[in-house]
Amino acid sequence: MVNSESNQYDEAAFVPGHVTGFFSAHPDENPAAAGSRGAGITLSHGVDVRVERGGHGGTPDDASRQVRLNGEAIEIDAAARVLEALDATDARVVAETPLPVGAGFGVSGAIALGTAYAVNAAYDRGRSENDLVRIAHCAEVEAGSGLGDVVAQARGGLPIRLDPGAPDHGQLDGIPASPRVEYVSFGRVSTEEILSGDTTALTAAGERALSDLREAPTPERLVSLSRRFAREADLLTDHVADAIAAVRAAGGDAAMAMLGETVFAFDGGLSAAGYDPEVCSVHPAGATLLAEDGGDDDC
Amino acid sequence: MVNSESNQYDEAAFVPGHVTGFFSAHPDENPAAAGSRGAGITLSHGVDVRVERGGHGGTPDDASRQVRLNGEAIEIDAAARVLEALDATDARVVAETPLPVGAGFGVSGAIALGTAYAVNAAYDRGRSENDLVRIAHCAEVEAGSGLGDVVAQARGGLPIRLDPGAPDHGQLDGIPASPRVEYVSFGRVSTEEILSGDTTALTAAGERALSDLREAPTPERLVSLSRRFAREADLLTDHVADAIAAVRAAGGDAAMAMLGETVFAFDGGLSAAGYDPEVCSVHPAGATLLAEDGGDDDC
Repeated sequence: MVNSESNQYDEAAFVPGHVTGFFSAHPDENPAAAGSRGAGITLSHGVDVRVERGGHGGTPDDASRQVRLNGEAIEIDAAARVLEALDATDARVVAETPLPVGAGFGVSGAIALGTAYAVNAAYDRGRSENDLVRIAHCAEVEAGSGLGDVVAQARGGLPIRLDPGAPDHGQLDGIPASPRVEYVSFGRVSTEEILSGDTTALTAAGERALSDLREAPTPERLVSLSRRFAREADLLTDHVADAIAAVRAAGGDAAMAMLGETVFAFDGGLSAAGYDPEVCSVHPAGATLLAEDGGDDDC
Repeated sequence: MVNSESNQYDEAAFVPGHVTGFFSAHPDENPAAAGSRGAGITLSHGVDVRVERGGHGGTPDDASRQVRLNGEAIEIDAAARVLEALDATDARVVAETPLPVGAGFGVSGAIALGTAYAVNAAYDRGRSENDLVRIAHCAEVEAGSGLGDVVAQARGGLPIRLDPGAPDHGQLDGIPASPRVEYVSFGRVSTEEILSGDTTALTAAGERALSDLREAPTPERLVSLSRRFAREADLLTDHVADAIAAVRAAGGDAAMAMLGETVFAFDGGLSAAGYDPEVCSVHPAGATLLAEDGGDDDC
């Protein structure tokens, strides 16, 4: 606890990681209506976000020290925008995650959403969950760092994003399954670079995949349609293509995380192909405020 | 395991219990549009529902043995309707719960929803989560056993039902908090009896409570508005009124579960008043298909 005198105002949230398998981009002048359609996986590996009320000076030259991730100062535009929207620029945000950053796990969306939940509690802002999701979604869209992670991370499970946008705009559905998840990450892909380029072909491929998934929403189809999408959208890197080929040669299936040089598979797909993947499960819940006492409960 | 030869087709789901604090009733000829507005609490105490594919003969005179709850044969119209809708009348449904039945915990809704999830997996029906929620919601409405538990139990957390109906119709929101929950139950109230009577005054009181909760969605207001609703809707029994008074005299707050002779409070409210309540937490997730291996995972 870095700032022990403000402990009584600390609040913390957990937000699952989110891997998008395929998507279509839907820009809009209204950030609450902008976003993406698509489908993905929320992970039991996620981000713990703690907010210390008054833990940060709030002066402009302090800005670079407002957010820490795994012990390092980091600028996360989406989180700064959430603090502004909730009138909490004197807060300090401390995030911890085992997930690789910039590799397609929605870490920036998780920090934005976790900040919204924890600030709402620490500052008694009295907002509803949909309000907080909307604020974090708009912050992420305006920062250009993501289009659909936040609404998926607020839902949990295997989310299908039927419509783009924040809760008032975007309907969600889900695949009813809880497979084991494996992933390996080879590095970063710039979300901003892809999203700011021509997304016409990508979006057409994403719409096809969504339509095909809705016909039979199963984990197997999520992976095969995501694999097809990455090829059609021309996003495969050599590392990723090799790993997918190896998993298929071993009798499994795998696909690429949008957007990162990351491969994911269900059940034992990557292990069977000789990789040493990270292993986790589908997270059944969305973002959650952590109980104050932090202790075990008896039920 | 009663029917060990059909194990390979067994699938199981967990559905949280749900206590409604206040509601308004909205009948409609279309069961997917019918339902209730209101707010409540999903509980970490819930119902485990296992479906054995082909475990039941499916003949009419077997009907009473199709569903077992805590080891006893029981007729649950909503579950039978789910089996019919998913073309799985030869299934056997085995449910287990620590929750009191008929006392306002949404056990019938949980069995209907858990049956939908487990049948979809055991019979490879390829439905989406929204499809399964819609089927269970309609079954519960047509059975007359509930109006809003299913959609709340599919969401988890502290659900606010903004609109009546299944996922295509009803929008949900939530209170962002994870308080500890205490409850004591004195007995049953017939949901069917209340819902089939004149609900005009009840619905007016429920709409007022919803409007007031949306102004500041916090756990404290959920309890105080629920307490007001039970009084205005004239649903308090002597047992319940006494317990609520005792909790308030001890400095806490409590309200009545809709519909059961049950009192709930957050944090230590009932304990502080000298009761020996059941204790659980808010369940962060909605209904979840249980992983096949049933073992621990490492993350």
